[in-house]
Amino acid sequence: MKFSIDTGNLLQAAQIVSRAVASKTTIPALTGIYLECTNKNTLLLKATDLEIGIEHTVEANIEEIGSMVVPAKYLIDILRKLPNTEITLTTTPEDNNLTINYNQSQLSLNTFPTEQFSFLPNISNTHTITINNELFSNMIKKVSISFSHDITRPVLNGALFEVGDHKLTLVSSDTYRLSLIETGLDKDLEEDLKPIIIPAKALMELGRLIDKEESIKIIIDNNQAQFENDSIKIRVRLIDGKFPAYQNVIPNEYSTKIIADTKELLLSIERATVISSDENFNKTCTIKLEVNDNIIHIRSYSPNIGQLNDTLIADKEGEDINISFNGNYLIDILKIIDTDKVIIELNGNLSPGIIKPYESNMNYLSLILPVRS
Amino acid sequence: MKFSIDTGNLLQAAQIVSRAVASKTTIPALTGIYLECTNKNTLLLKATDLEIGIEHTVEANIEEIGSMVVPAKYLIDILRKLPNTEITLTTTPEDNNLTINYNQSQLSLNTFPTEQFSFLPNISNTHTITINNELFSNMIKKVSISFSHDITRPVLNGALFEVGDHKLTLVSSDTYRLSLIETGLDKDLEEDLKPIIIPAKALMELGRLIDKEESIKIIIDNNQAQFENDSIKIRVRLIDGKFPAYQNVIPNEYSTKIIADTKELLLSIERATVISSDENFNKTCTIKLEVNDNIIHIRSYSPNIGQLNDTLIADKEGEDINISFNGNYLIDILKIIDTDKVIIELNGNLSPGIIKPYESNMNYLSLILPVRS
Repeated sequence: MKFSIDTGNLLQAAQIVSRAVASKTTIPALTGIYLECTNKNTLLLKATDLEIGIEHTVEANIEEIGSMVVPAKYLIDILRKLPNTEITLTTTPEDNNLTINYNQSQLSLNTFPTEQFSFLPNISNTHTITINNELFSNMIKKVSISFSHDITRPVLNGALFEVGDHKLTLVSSDTYRLSLIETGLDKDLEEDLKPIIIPAKALMELGRLIDKEESIKIIIDNNQAQFENDSIKIRVRLIDGKFPAYQNVIPNEYSTKIIADTKELLLSIERATVISSDENFNKTCTIKLEVNDNIIHIRSYSPNIGQLNDTLIADKEGEDINISFNGNYLIDILKIIDTDKVIIELNGNLSPGIIKPYESNMNYLSLILPVRS
Repeated sequence: MKFSIDTGNLLQAAQIVSRAVASKTTIPALTGIYLECTNKNTLLLKATDLEIGIEHTVEANIEEIGSMVVPAKYLIDILRKLPNTEITLTTTPEDNNLTINYNQSQLSLNTFPTEQFSFLPNISNTHTITINNELFSNMIKKVSISFSHDITRPVLNGALFEVGDHKLTLVSSDTYRLSLIETGLDKDLEEDLKPIIIPAKALMELGRLIDKEESIKIIIDNNQAQFENDSIKIRVRLIDGKFPAYQNVIPNEYSTKIIADTKELLLSIERATVISSDENFNKTCTIKLEVNDNIIHIRSYSPNIGQLNDTLIADKEGEDINISFNGNYLIDILKIIDTDKVIIELNGNLSPGIIKPYESNMNYLSLILPVRS
């Protein structure tokens, strides 16, 4: 195979697919990027760790078709250091090396045998949804705070992805907190799609890779989902299993409702969390909220660090309350609320609290269990 | 003690002295910042790990004199999260806490007993030099690439600091390479100063802390050096011992002299080093320079990665040569050469090479031992 391309274009493409390159694997070829010269103008790049696979196409000046698998690390390191000019890449059947010619110089990289490279199976075109990229990125960001990393409960190591009633719902939970975000869809699916679970790692990569201000097409079959735009396809193996029935744990009413300034509340809880961050004393980093009329007292204490008594003015409906939460969990949630004000709904000091944006066009909520104190 | 100050001002001051806070220590109070209300307008902050000590003064509204020692980490974490407004800090003799009042809220931090805090002894005013800050920072940066981290040779864990003949010389060496930089001084010392060795860590902090475009005063006595401007004093315990006689190893002549484009040469050596960076094959990351007339061939090889043959045009005087170096060492040097062209002087393939800027107003050179290959 032989093709020419600008260094910068090849580097950018290699960096995109390299997000899927396997880091721990017994198959050395999966630490490589598969390059294929497909026709006169298109170079196809692929990489996979067999959980997620990325395909990307770029324009190139193809002189001879063929394919090869190049170690991702060395290819990218070298491309970063090459002059930004047109370079020519060649492999010959006689030898396993990729030769790169640039200016009057030349280098060669060892490659992996092409037949040792695998990829995720093709996806069958069962269900298709189209959604705005930026919106979908935002949805991923919102559920990302409550992915579970407990490998003994794999169904919680991803987000539930539900389509129906002209809407898409994403849900994640680590059993201490739960995030739910919904968005409307223009078109519903023709056939029912059973709820699927997409691995957290794949969603995070997706949030990084998909371009803004363009729509993304999502194709789902029984075992895989594929997210694609014009030049990038990200294929993901779904998590097998049944996501817990989250609807039952989200309360429909509240006995106390607080509306506070998001930034002020966040800073106050961050201060409180500095004080309660003494792991020897308190693993749950507990902070107390005491709400009296329109005043929230935020308090925290640890014997080795000190204590805090912060006062905030807020709007309140319903009963006064005295409740404790893990400060770090509250910080995670308040950091991704993008409205100036935030709503906290409570049902006594033993029931979960609901935190959601105030006057948002987004249906987003985060549920958090209180700490008994 | 009691004083008021803006959050931002106190945070900035605390961050400056915190660079000297001890990270590993058996004396808990040395993980703290000493604060002293000295007179109506000045707050003094101090921190030390007993190798380096930083004193810094800021304006504050002092209401009651006194002193205290606050854990650096918690003080800084809290100041980062406080509203940027005037805050009041108080300690009372009855209790060991620092109370911070802000808006309508209050927090307290535990403190260390003041008597458990130590500091480096006062410096006696033996020798004094004044030098431009930016120039001195640049000198530190230039010698920083060849500090040794071998604790069995403590004299190499810092830079030699020599004053005489109206000039200041800094030298560092890890035995594989050596950096030397000189600058002229307006005034010589009245008495002889024997060469001293300043610890690398202290010099690095100094390079970070001293402001640009101002002069810095350096005071040296038998055991310590102090670097100061109007508000910051950095005191440093000197390394005891005799620095090797570096003059003998720097060659005065050359059999080959190369003048190359600094950036082109750096990129080429970086490419070569990607290829030779296979630690299992070659711990010294060897790259070869083959100079024929006005062409430099840069070559590298490793069986697991690949090979490179790079061609550069350069000016050459004297003999053709074929010599090998550790690529990483060359990269370190070329990255801090700030002239467009660079000079490499060689004396055959077994003698050290000298690398220095071309047409610079700075007397700077880096010596590097070749690799036998």
